[in-house]
Amino acid sequence: MSIVVVGSVALDSVKTPFGERTEALGGSAVYFSYSSSFFSNVKLVGVVGQDFPSKNLDLLRRRKIDLEGLQVAPGDTFRWSGFYEYDLNEAKTLDTRLNVFEKFSPNLPESYRSADCVFLANIDPDLQMRVLRQVRRPKLIAADTMNLWISTKKESLKALCREIDILILNDGEARQLSGKASLIQAGRLIQSWGPKFVVVKKGEHGVLLFSKKNVFSAPAYPLEEVFDPTGAGDTFAGGFVGYLNKRGNRLDEATLHQALFYGTVMASFTVERFSLERLLTVRNGDIVRRLALLHRMSRPSRI
Amino acid sequence: MSIVVVGSVALDSVKTPFGERTEALGGSAVYFSYSSSFFSNVKLVGVVGQDFPSKNLDLLRRRKIDLEGLQVAPGDTFRWSGFYEYDLNEAKTLDTRLNVFEKFSPNLPESYRSADCVFLANIDPDLQMRVLRQVRRPKLIAADTMNLWISTKKESLKALCREIDILILNDGEARQLSGKASLIQAGRLIQSWGPKFVVVKKGEHGVLLFSKKNVFSAPAYPLEEVFDPTGAGDTFAGGFVGYLNKRGNRLDEATLHQALFYGTVMASFTVERFSLERLLTVRNGDIVRRLALLHRMSRPSRI
Repeated sequence: MSIVVVGSVALDSVKTPFGERTEALGGSAVYFSYSSSFFSNVKLVGVVGQDFPSKNLDLLRRRKIDLEGLQVAPGDTFRWSGFYEYDLNEAKTLDTRLNVFEKFSPNLPESYRSADCVFLANIDPDLQMRVLRQVRRPKLIAADTMNLWISTKKESLKALCREIDILILNDGEARQLSGKASLIQAGRLIQSWGPKFVVVKKGEHGVLLFSKKNVFSAPAYPLEEVFDPTGAGDTFAGGFVGYLNKRGNRLDEATLHQALFYGTVMASFTVERFSLERLLTVRNGDIVRRLALLHRMSRPSRI
Repeated sequence: MSIVVVGSVALDSVKTPFGERTEALGGSAVYFSYSSSFFSNVKLVGVVGQDFPSKNLDLLRRRKIDLEGLQVAPGDTFRWSGFYEYDLNEAKTLDTRLNVFEKFSPNLPESYRSADCVFLANIDPDLQMRVLRQVRRPKLIAADTMNLWISTKKESLKALCREIDILILNDGEARQLSGKASLIQAGRLIQSWGPKFVVVKKGEHGVLLFSKKNVFSAPAYPLEEVFDPTGAGDTFAGGFVGYLNKRGNRLDEATLHQALFYGTVMASFTVERFSLERLLTVRNGDIVRRLALLHRMSRPSRI
């Protein structure tokens, strides 16, 4: 079992009401890889500049994340800086410097092309499609996206929907992509465009999973405080897809539900500190305990 | 088993993006009574003016709701008018005419005073307390409140919290009352003030139930469209408290969880039309079917 993830590797400067960090390790492929490494073997595809601190690579290597597909290009690493207001609901971007990420063209090493699972993190849907042309019949393909691509490349995104098993996006993106205010309508419509399943992330309100016939709802983990939501979505996807891959890419209801819960648990760690700081200290026992609590809080006791 | 409910009886004029109604039957005690009448015997305490259309009383009598405690006072019935924007999240008030409701002082008929359950709908917390002095040791007391009383009578409300078993309020009210942005912190803090349980209603995101040790999350019913949210909260409370009363006012986890689900189902009917229009056509089979779907969407399948 192995997962190829294609996405960004970044240096994030983030300010929240609780503190700030400068040039901390971030990026969708990083959060996803770290999170999914608790469940499966992960092969990362991305690009960094020559300025990228080697200690960041060490963090990933320690989780046995395969970095053969991480290109080092002349120039600087992708940088994002932003801040959150007190409600922490929405990241406000101060500055985005794509740097080496601007010309990024995913190129999978031969050893990656037979992976049985692919996660296309939030990059240009044309690049996501290009990745799919480089892999040999993976059993499971999941993808994320963002408002920028919904505005600028909607047709590419709809074409991608026909090629993938699971689309993961947040509530605002689901509304924007579908043109429906009702999340129930939005999820059903997007599902009808091709993906077997659509996962709609609602932050503190949990997630909805849409299949052809059903909707399933999983709550968020009941944290007293969220410190920094950066990376929560990609960490969720890492736990979700990682668990599915571990279970042989099965997509029956029981496996999907458990995967949603694992994704939720992994995201709950990320938001407790900046960057990967909290994830770095997570042990398997922590995951098991939070998973049990999440089951208790959503599974109605039998009369 | 019987429930005394004290609250407003109103004529509502509501406009939503989907239509409008003028002087339709409304008010917290009405929505609550009608909803809880599917589960238990209901005794209504409230006041109307001499202008109140008798056909509205017939609707309530048809559900065997006891109206001995409904005073008819000289003057006009309480009227509220408001509208909802496209997102339907928040009622905008155009006009509130308290009329006979301004001088309302709840006075329970002797036949009401031995009810084993009391629901204090959203009225002045000092009046809510006055009701409690008129009943003989009910086994279950639940109450609702609103932003007005949180701003103007916070100490009365905190005193009430020490007398009741369950406080039901929405997410905005929970944040306002507790002064906490985190709903998890808000629910836990309010619960520590006295109620055995706090129910936080989150609209399309479902409800959270806080007990001393646990948080439980129930999803909203997955409606494709909400037509008019007026009365949803009181209808929820009617199903929730009605079911608890039917089950002998038991407050074990299994009964509480099922009660949350019944409340959610009842509210899902109310929001499908104006006023009580949809509730009027509900049959027991409709309730059972929606309850089953709600269980399927929140109970993870076993691995």
